[in-house]
Amino acid sequence: MIRERLEALRELMKKRGITAYLVPTADYHESEYVGEHFKERAYITGFTGSAGTAVITLSDAGLWTDGRYFVQAAKQLEDTTITLYRRGEEGVPTILEYLEGHLGEGDCLGFDGRCVNGKWGRQLEELVQRKHVSLHVSEDLIDEIWEDRPPLSKEPAWILDTGYSGMSTAGKLASVRDNMEKQGADVHLLSSLCDIAWILNLRGNDIIYVPVVLSYLVLTREECFLFVQKEAVGERVMQYLTENGVQVRAYEDFYDYAAALKDRRILLDSGIVNYRILSSISGCNQLVDAMNPEELFRAVKNPIELSNCRAAHEKDAVAMCRFMYWLKQNIGKQEITELSAAEYLQRLRAQQEGFLDLSFETISAYGEHGAIVHYAATAETNVPLHPEGLFLVDSGGHYLEGTTDITRTFALGPLTEQMKADYTRVLRSNLALMNAVFLYGCTGRNLDILAREPLWEAGLDYKHGTGHGVGYILNVHEGPNAFRWQRRGEETALEEGMITTDEPGLYLEGQYGIRLENELACRCGKKNEYGQFMYFENLTFVPFDLDAVDADQMTDREREWLNQYHRSVYTTVSPYLTEDELAWLQEATREI
Amino acid sequence: MIRERLEALRELMKKRGITAYLVPTADYHESEYVGEHFKERAYITGFTGSAGTAVITLSDAGLWTDGRYFVQAAKQLEDTTITLYRRGEEGVPTILEYLEGHLGEGDCLGFDGRCVNGKWGRQLEELVQRKHVSLHVSEDLIDEIWEDRPPLSKEPAWILDTGYSGMSTAGKLASVRDNMEKQGADVHLLSSLCDIAWILNLRGNDIIYVPVVLSYLVLTREECFLFVQKEAVGERVMQYLTENGVQVRAYEDFYDYAAALKDRRILLDSGIVNYRILSSISGCNQLVDAMNPEELFRAVKNPIELSNCRAAHEKDAVAMCRFMYWLKQNIGKQEITELSAAEYLQRLRAQQEGFLDLSFETISAYGEHGAIVHYAATAETNVPLHPEGLFLVDSGGHYLEGTTDITRTFALGPLTEQMKADYTRVLRSNLALMNAVFLYGCTGRNLDILAREPLWEAGLDYKHGTGHGVGYILNVHEGPNAFRWQRRGEETALEEGMITTDEPGLYLEGQYGIRLENELACRCGKKNEYGQFMYFENLTFVPFDLDAVDADQMTDREREWLNQYHRSVYTTVSPYLTEDELAWLQEATREI
Repeated sequence: MIRERLEALRELMKKRGITAYLVPTADYHESEYVGEHFKERAYITGFTGSAGTAVITLSDAGLWTDGRYFVQAAKQLEDTTITLYRRGEEGVPTILEYLEGHLGEGDCLGFDGRCVNGKWGRQLEELVQRKHVSLHVSEDLIDEIWEDRPPLSKEPAWILDTGYSGMSTAGKLASVRDNMEKQGADVHLLSSLCDIAWILNLRGNDIIYVPVVLSYLVLTREECFLFVQKEAVGERVMQYLTENGVQVRAYEDFYDYAAALKDRRILLDSGIVNYRILSSISGCNQLVDAMNPEELFRAVKNPIELSNCRAAHEKDAVAMCRFMYWLKQNIGKQEITELSAAEYLQRLRAQQEGFLDLSFETISAYGEHGAIVHYAATAETNVPLHPEGLFLVDSGGHYLEGTTDITRTFALGPLTEQMKADYTRVLRSNLALMNAVFLYGCTGRNLDILAREPLWEAGLDYKHGTGHGVGYILNVHEGPNAFRWQRRGEETALEEGMITTDEPGLYLEGQYGIRLENELACRCGKKNEYGQFMYFENLTFVPFDLDAVDADQMTDREREWLNQYHRSVYTTVSPYLTEDELAWLQEATREI
Repeated sequence: MIRERLEALRELMKKRGITAYLVPTADYHESEYVGEHFKERAYITGFTGSAGTAVITLSDAGLWTDGRYFVQAAKQLEDTTITLYRRGEEGVPTILEYLEGHLGEGDCLGFDGRCVNGKWGRQLEELVQRKHVSLHVSEDLIDEIWEDRPPLSKEPAWILDTGYSGMSTAGKLASVRDNMEKQGADVHLLSSLCDIAWILNLRGNDIIYVPVVLSYLVLTREECFLFVQKEAVGERVMQYLTENGVQVRAYEDFYDYAAALKDRRILLDSGIVNYRILSSISGCNQLVDAMNPEELFRAVKNPIELSNCRAAHEKDAVAMCRFMYWLKQNIGKQEITELSAAEYLQRLRAQQEGFLDLSFETISAYGEHGAIVHYAATAETNVPLHPEGLFLVDSGGHYLEGTTDITRTFALGPLTEQMKADYTRVLRSNLALMNAVFLYGCTGRNLDILAREPLWEAGLDYKHGTGHGVGYILNVHEGPNAFRWQRRGEETALEEGMITTDEPGLYLEGQYGIRLENELACRCGKKNEYGQFMYFENLTFVPFDLDAVDADQMTDREREWLNQYHRSVYTTVSPYLTEDELAWLQEATREI
């Protein structure tokens, strides 16, 4: 089937005179997750992983993906004639290097200019100019051959009331316009769906797990245009937008509008707006190419958002505690699998008032699956849980009051000493970061070592960041805040109101994985002659599994941190539990 | 006197048509410390601090300096008509802002282009161009009026044998030429004295505490020219240079040589070479403006240097231990002052074989003087030591085997509980960094929080970096390695062989200061699937004063770190001590 699709694509490429066609995993908005309509790379290669880029030439085809997907991609690419390029492995060319080697004078490189961000497009442009190769970027070739392509999602948008958003749309528009003025911009062009959702206090349902609305926004000092599918805008939303001075235009009219912009100073982020937008406006306007101001505004939760988040986390903690109780009671007594456990947990979350959806696909990973950092159980990989070993569950939900992300690793029965030692190390890492006190000005890069040191001192590590920002009923992953020791360059100081996950882990391939994740809200502490001190308010209230803890490995101080944490879990969750659950929680949060 | 000097300068300025003349604290080589000949700013203002810049206009005069010197400068500037500009205080203009306000069309800004580095010169150039002001930078006006100016130092250079340097000059020249080739440079121009001393394995005596030779170096792929005063080059050195293919030219001929360079690709660091050099070569050559490769080469000590450093630190530790013993035995029994203690310590160092000089002016600071971070006792400030309170001594030496830098704070008698609590915090900070384990790739910016956290958690801090690189019989302060949480931008990974100080502190104005400083050599630890782990080898072996430690504030682990450290002190130093000293050391390094 893939061979036939490739054949059809190549026929079309020949008609257009295209010698290499690039198919990324992207929508027009540089979204982290994309809707079904946009899964062109999966369509043309058969590889369904969340990250990967294909390049098809008239005689050759390649797929580039990262370490998470090497096994899956190798399997899915079998018999497709497509070569797997393992990103980051020694001797594996990058896409640019591949194109450098495969394109020559007179060739033509094609891609849909809407699916490649401006920065990446500029790099490709620079390459083709150097090689005297032409570009064909105005057409979506896959669309021409994809017969049963899922349509663009047109789910209805809904309004997030000020009681939830904490700031009116008028207030947000004013803040952004202030920022435009500071940067000397008279137009601000937004294509990132989370930024648009934030500024308009609108949510939607066009991308799984990310409640946003497919749209573009253009803001001038006086006017505001929202380019959106008419099906998404019901009567109430239309009225609301009109009241806020937002003029609604058709989603598909955006490119004509953008192309007509002349002699303006346009604020945008070229790493986010797509190449077609960037190309059409950059010649005849001045660009202020910078991080979208909304990104920082979104990251710094206002007091109402923060207080709502506390409520959302309380609900989420109740669901998670019930899940943990159920698991501990029933393991070995009834058949539970990775998938059925995830489903049970989802039902518990759904029972909570204001629950909207999961915030990402639950990672329900037993035993050796826990060592696969981005594992998602499928019908093929699903395994039953046994009353032994470790079970890692990374999950979260969207509620009307906010978004959650939590990981717990559970002892399902007897553990080896090594498992306990490893669990305890990861726990110490989590607690060390949670209890950090630091001067204002610190970034996640400064703090990351607090979580790493308990592992590093034993020659251990985890190959992912310690934490990411969390959106407010938006993408569960957001920037600019993060805990990453290796990230240099642009760094943002941790501001009061930023929410960042604290999720150290340890992964033993073929054996087990451990990850313990809380969310931390950055808060102002005391201010004195040394400066403004900051600390973290913990938002996540679910016990760390004491069955997996070796208390002897912990210092008095670490034990006190743990006991204090467990006291707060008990206080927070106990009002919502049944008598049996409560008895269990008392034991699960006992002093050690 | 200052008024007369200002008058004489203004007369000369009028003759030259100069409306504002800038006098920095600098030699021609962007040295941190400068020789007597170069103290023009002190001559024209009367302010003798180590950092400060003067601007003199026809009607006005200002001096800019930083917080260390506000008190001293205010006093020394009394009745001089010179205004003190306190750098960093609110509402105080920078020099650029001052010039912006005081210069207008047709004016002329003057300074000695050799005493302003290229980057700073370029900023001034940009300013004058914008303001239609002319520049006069070819003349040293202070020299014209300074009658009894000390001559340029012309101390003899001497050769550091390979047994000390660990790498021949030929080898170093080859390494640098390799680097030039990688950067596509055919000429490498060096004006920084430490870099020149390193590459040629030469040392000298032209700057107090920094054993370097006033010189410039130009390296091409085949040739090497050293511009140096003939008095500095004795017969042996001349022969040595000739053997290494180094052609000697007169120091004063350098500028003509540089001006004649045409159509070359020149590697230099515009933040280090002076403005006159940069201006004369930048029009007609291509510049590769980057950190001098020698800076990183110097920072990474080779195995012989490292092993020599251990020997130097052993000697230094013996001197410091004797000093501590003497202090503890004699305080309250004989008259000891800040100055006499510093002199006694210097005599103890001088008794060690291979001792060359102090590596910086000893900070000998009793009681409230300890809270002045850059305190240097003078005849006016000198106070006697009493058998009570805290005494901070920051000192170091150059030996043939390397350079040392150590700070200890001593309890001279009874301490308050607060003093002990503070001392113990600083000790915990020092130990936490010393015992860090980390993955290769970490920079000092990643690690700094390990030293800060024990203070930050109590709402305390110290307003200086935690550590700096240490030169090898060169400047005791060197880069690029450092422990600084606030430093962004260019960061260098900690490499095996880098030596960095670990010197947290705590300063209570008007009361006391505490600083505890060891030197740490970065070493490779185990390598596994997670990467290359690194750790620090401690080089400094002098007891932390147990009379100031409150052991109850320390975790078991911290106490074990301290006990382990003290065992290593005893093992290292005990072979060199008398029986009485030994008995004392045993007690001073006892297990807690």
